[in-house]
Amino acid sequence: MKKDFLSILDLTQEEALELLDFSLKVKKGKVNDRVLEGKVVALIFEKPSLRTRVTFERAVYDLGGKPIYLSNNDIKLGQRESVRDVSRNLEKWVDGIVARVFSHATLIEMSKNVKIPVINALSDLEHPCQIVGDFLTMMEKSGKTKINLAFIGDGNNVANSIMLMTALLGGKFTIACPEGYEPEKNLYLAAQELAEKTGAQIKIIRDPKEAVIDADFIYTDVWASMGQEEEAEKRRQVFKTYKVDSALLKLAPSHVGVLHCLPAHRGEEITDEVLDGPHSIVLDQAENRLHSEKAIIIKLFRRMY
Amino acid sequence: MKKDFLSILDLTQEEALELLDFSLKVKKGKVNDRVLEGKVVALIFEKPSLRTRVTFERAVYDLGGKPIYLSNNDIKLGQRESVRDVSRNLEKWVDGIVARVFSHATLIEMSKNVKIPVINALSDLEHPCQIVGDFLTMMEKSGKTKINLAFIGDGNNVANSIMLMTALLGGKFTIACPEGYEPEKNLYLAAQELAEKTGAQIKIIRDPKEAVIDADFIYTDVWASMGQEEEAEKRRQVFKTYKVDSALLKLAPSHVGVLHCLPAHRGEEITDEVLDGPHSIVLDQAENRLHSEKAIIIKLFRRMY
Amino acid sequence: MKKDFLSILDLTQEEALELLDFSLKVKKGKVNDRVLEGKVVALIFEKPSLRTRVTFERAVYDLGGKPIYLSNNDIKLGQRESVRDVSRNLEKWVDGIVARVFSHATLIEMSKNVKIPVINALSDLEHPCQIVGDFLTMMEKSGKTKINLAFIGDGNNVANSIMLMTALLGGKFTIACPEGYEPEKNLYLAAQELAEKTGAQIKIIRDPKEAVIDADFIYTDVWASMGQEEEAEKRRQVFKTYKVDSALLKLAPSHVGVLHCLPAHRGEEITDEVLDGPHSIVLDQAENRLHSEKAIIIKLFRRMY
Repeated sequence: MKKDFLSILDLTQEEALELLDFSLKVKKGKVNDRVLEGKVVALIFEKPSLRTRVTFERAVYDLGGKPIYLSNNDIKLGQRESVRDVSRNLEKWVDGIVARVFSHATLIEMSKNVKIPVINALSDLEHPCQIVGDFLTMMEKSGKTKINLAFIGDGNNVANSIMLMTALLGGKFTIACPEGYEPEKNLYLAAQELAEKTGAQIKIIRDPKEAVIDADFIYTDVWASMGQEEEAEKRRQVFKTYKVDSALLKLAPSHVGVLHCLPAHRGEEITDEVLDGPHSIVLDQAENRLHSEKAIIIKLFRRMY
Repeated sequence: MKKDFLSILDLTQEEALELLDFSLKVKKGKVNDRVLEGKVVALIFEKPSLRTRVTFERAVYDLGGKPIYLSNNDIKLGQRESVRDVSRNLEKWVDGIVARVFSHATLIEMSKNVKIPVINALSDLEHPCQIVGDFLTMMEKSGKTKINLAFIGDGNNVANSIMLMTALLGGKFTIACPEGYEPEKNLYLAAQELAEKTGAQIKIIRDPKEAVIDADFIYTDVWASMGQEEEAEKRRQVFKTYKVDSALLKLAPSHVGVLHCLPAHRGEEITDEVLDGPHSIVLDQAENRLHSEKAIIIKLFRRMY
Repeated sequence: MKKDFLSILDLTQEEALELLDFSLKVKKGKVNDRVLEGKVVALIFEKPSLRTRVTFERAVYDLGGKPIYLSNNDIKLGQRESVRDVSRNLEKWVDGIVARVFSHATLIEMSKNVKIPVINALSDLEHPCQIVGDFLTMMEKSGKTKINLAFIGDGNNVANSIMLMTALLGGKFTIACPEGYEPEKNLYLAAQELAEKTGAQIKIIRDPKEAVIDADFIYTDVWASMGQEEEAEKRRQVFKTYKVDSALLKLAPSHVGVLHCLPAHRGEEITDEVLDGPHSIVLDQAENRLHSEKAIIIKLFRRMY
């Protein structure tokens, strides 16, 4: 693996498979690693978070380290001080950075300016740690790493990272989304390029029904992410036929698993019935975030220290 | 003890006595327990706090665990995500929850949805951890657990829990409060029911002077709690004769101890003279919060893990 | 050393030299001290901070202790509760206090009310921990403790503490500042008094060019500190000729080192060219904060515990 983990594109296929395998070992308690003993990891959160924050704090603790949680109010990245200056200062006192940022460019800027590992805990472009946990969840359930997944809704950061991981591992990714809400153009091109080598199929379509027809997994996420509240009403109109409900589920194979990275807007992109129903594996996803984040930290820090 | 500690009503008389006894052992350094070794406890605070936060963080550290402090800004309980969803997610990553909430119903909802211990660190209905510490303080000072206490002022969460604990242990609880500011109706009925078995006396009266006449302890709290700032002016009128001052103290027995859970509004419900005077045991109360919270955590976690 | 470290004036010359020497030992890894084992330190920050917060949290962790970070939102010092009450409560649960406050009087009030060590992590009057790290940096670079330093700009808390330390150690301190922006009067008098014993030279002048002519080090800081945003525009006018740029640097000796406590307002008090140029030692300063804060904590806590 590279020094940092900012994007699914930072992984080779071999590394991705090894990372999933290693995550499973961590989950099963077969890895007893205190790689962070005596080390401190800065957790920078430009946006607040429940899952990402708690899983990373716990991961750091379990690996013997100490987290220092810094909210946007504490550091005002890029306002009070440039990202470059903040990063080069932090490097003097901490052994790694986990950052949840508005702009992916912030992560790139951090990465360029420090020698310590930088981990993407969510950016506008990608959410790679989430997706490693999600693939662990689907691998556990299906026994496969070539996943056939339908993504219903907004081609956001989560969709981008799933698309890239599917392309890398040779599965099938179909996103059903309204026009203008496709995955990011350059990442789509990168996914297609990967797909040519791995045999993956990456498709963008409009019709959710068509998307789920042979899917082993259905994934959805909120229609409006944090920071998009002002366009929430418009998005509610645009996405109203992109709801994962019982009617849609009936069109999918009976073994289909339903994923959501949470928090959900119940009744919008997903109904209570589905989220709490027998197909839902959202709580497994939630649990697996912890295990896969530990695996990621161990891999990066073992390489560095 | 039950899985959770949400209310004084979660305790039997025997458990309450044992908990006080155990708290004293903790204070004396006779308990060397690392029940939280390798464990993480989420500290959820819908309202900010000094005493509750610092004592619980220290308690968790001293017992070998790691706290993760989550402010309302971090999780927006019930707004960004339902209490049920937050709880069921948290359970995947942490070993216990300490929560300071606006509504007691939030604690009940948490408790129902998770298998890990949930501890009430203040709700609109009760403040049971505070009251265990306070009874430890009064037990130390008087040598008794059947306490004769006068509560002067608002029948709030603190008053509710003291009333219940007195009822449980067979003491005498007299609250002097204005009409309309009595302890919560259902908890009062529960206290009366307990009193029938334990021989406790629970009285609601109007006149502070009458209340303190034979009291071993006088307890007061702010007239307007956090979140009631808009009615603060009205409350200042309503409660103006419910002040614990030197004049009132002179009517009480000379050995009387004065308690306040702090922070105090000096000059309102209590005067500087009394708060800083020889009868005040408020700093002992503050110290004992730490010891009794440790005792509570040990009891709950030893049962669970 | 005294119980607390609130001001450079808390040190004798001998103690200051010993502290610098000890800081260097800490930096070189020659001190393996777990003085905070089993201890908890409250970090009270009335203003948010990057450097001060991260270095103190790390210092506490590295010395075996646990930090409890309390923002102003958590405790509202002096609003929700008096400084005296907060301090006397905190003392019951923590083993030391590090505080970054608006008013130096807050530190004095804390210090008077508790027996545990109190450390000034920035006040309106002084920033002594910063300055110990800065003198370590200059001592490393020059091999001397009698420093010849030109301070360009506002006679603020940082300037005050540098002036006092120079006076204590017998160096030469020249501040070039606009009229009305001199170091604090009483501290200036204290510095002059010290200088009479140590042979130090303390000068206040108006012309930056004159100040740097024989300086071994040039130090500058922002023109408007946090909390002075409303007068920022006025200050930009007043200080516009007090910029540390290449032109000014050319007038100084070729070996001159440039310091800034950061964050910088690039293009205002200092140019990119200088801040990122070969004379800049600002990242060494940043690093040394950690080492010197550890040294300070060890000295204070070894004395106390």
